[in-house]
Amino acid sequence: MSLVDKLNWRYATKKFDNTKKIPADKLNNILDAVQLAPSSAGLQHYRVLVIEDAHTRAKLREAAFGQSQITDASQLIVFAAETNLNEDFANKYINLIAETRNTTTESLAGFKSMIMGSINSRTPEQLVIWAQKQAYIGLGVLVTAAADQDVDICPMEGFDVTKFDEILGLKEKGLTATVIATIGYRAEDDAYSRLAKVRRPASELFIHI
Amino acid sequence: MSLVDKLNWRYATKKFDNTKKIPADKLNNILDAVQLAPSSAGLQHYRVLVIEDAHTRAKLREAAFGQSQITDASQLIVFAAETNLNEDFANKYINLIAETRNTTTESLAGFKSMIMGSINSRTPEQLVIWAQKQAYIGLGVLVTAAADQDVDICPMEGFDVTKFDEILGLKEKGLTATVIATIGYRAEDDAYSRLAKVRRPASELFIHI
Repeated sequence: MSLVDKLNWRYATKKFDNTKKIPADKLNNILDAVQLAPSSAGLQHYRVLVIEDAHTRAKLREAAFGQSQITDASQLIVFAAETNLNEDFANKYINLIAETRNTTTESLAGFKSMIMGSINSRTPEQLVIWAQKQAYIGLGVLVTAAADQDVDICPMEGFDVTKFDEILGLKEKGLTATVIATIGYRAEDDAYSRLAKVRRPASELFIHI
Repeated sequence: MSLVDKLNWRYATKKFDNTKKIPADKLNNILDAVQLAPSSAGLQHYRVLVIEDAHTRAKLREAAFGQSQITDASQLIVFAAETNLNEDFANKYINLIAETRNTTTESLAGFKSMIMGSINSRTPEQLVIWAQKQAYIGLGVLVTAAADQDVDICPMEGFDVTKFDEILGLKEKGLTATVIATIGYRAEDDAYSRLAKVRRPASELFIHI
């Protein structure tokens, strides 16, 4: 199947088969793809929680209108945006580049100054929104990579951010829950899997100039 | 090559080969993937401009700090968020679902009411940010699908939104430029293509619970 066929195969899974787990190598492969998602200036403005623990998921389900996917899927993925994008964060990134590319931080001074410009030009609220947008790129990569591995996903925005942050202790980590996705295998009797996919026609979605 | 290998192969291309165009079937395949990107409630809160016209791209390049990728790539993709998410927009979507799934709009009343809840709970500014986040999912799918087709991408946030909206007449269309990507083939002498990829180690990016 081509990637487009696989994206046609996927859908926002409403009912997962709670007896099926994603094999470890498949899950790692999907997470590898998420790790490779691009982000503005390469900063990776978010972290990714991979939650399997039943007790934690039961609490999170309550904080997400009781949606059954949260406990029935193989794992719950939480994209959590960084809330402390500051010079310290930039320095860590610059050090990582220097280490990875075997160069000096001094040679990256211009790049660091560009990053600090991006940070300093934003209010604290705008910085979080900026980070959150990058997390949504990660979600796009996650959905595509999971489909490529014949794994089902349901991306979700319907959850109580404050409660998620509390349950997961995200505030102390300088993070805030941004968007989530349940990942696993569809239940055979999920009626939604048989519905025709609804998308704006290409002639309406795309504008060619 | 696996999808992960292809995501490792890709990088934010700084210099495109301006003699190479993406074959039409390949470009359409990539756009098909973008059309299949998920979005909150399936609303597809954005449109996607595919810009090949040299005159338009020259103007846009000026409005994007002169970045050469904009004119040298095969095409420029502009994700433009909808700025008029209202009941009319919701009705069009409900009609599209009814048509696609051969059902009545009456049977979708509950779903429509959920969508209107999502719209009415947001301020006009929050609605645009919501739409923009969905566009970033589209970008994630674009990047992955292009890599899958051995096509290079440079996602970019560095452009003057007001000027882009003016040049492309987006305001009148109820849209605003959100994030852009140049798409085509890397120039053989783009030094950036040989740099090691920098990513936070998995142990730092992922939190397993």
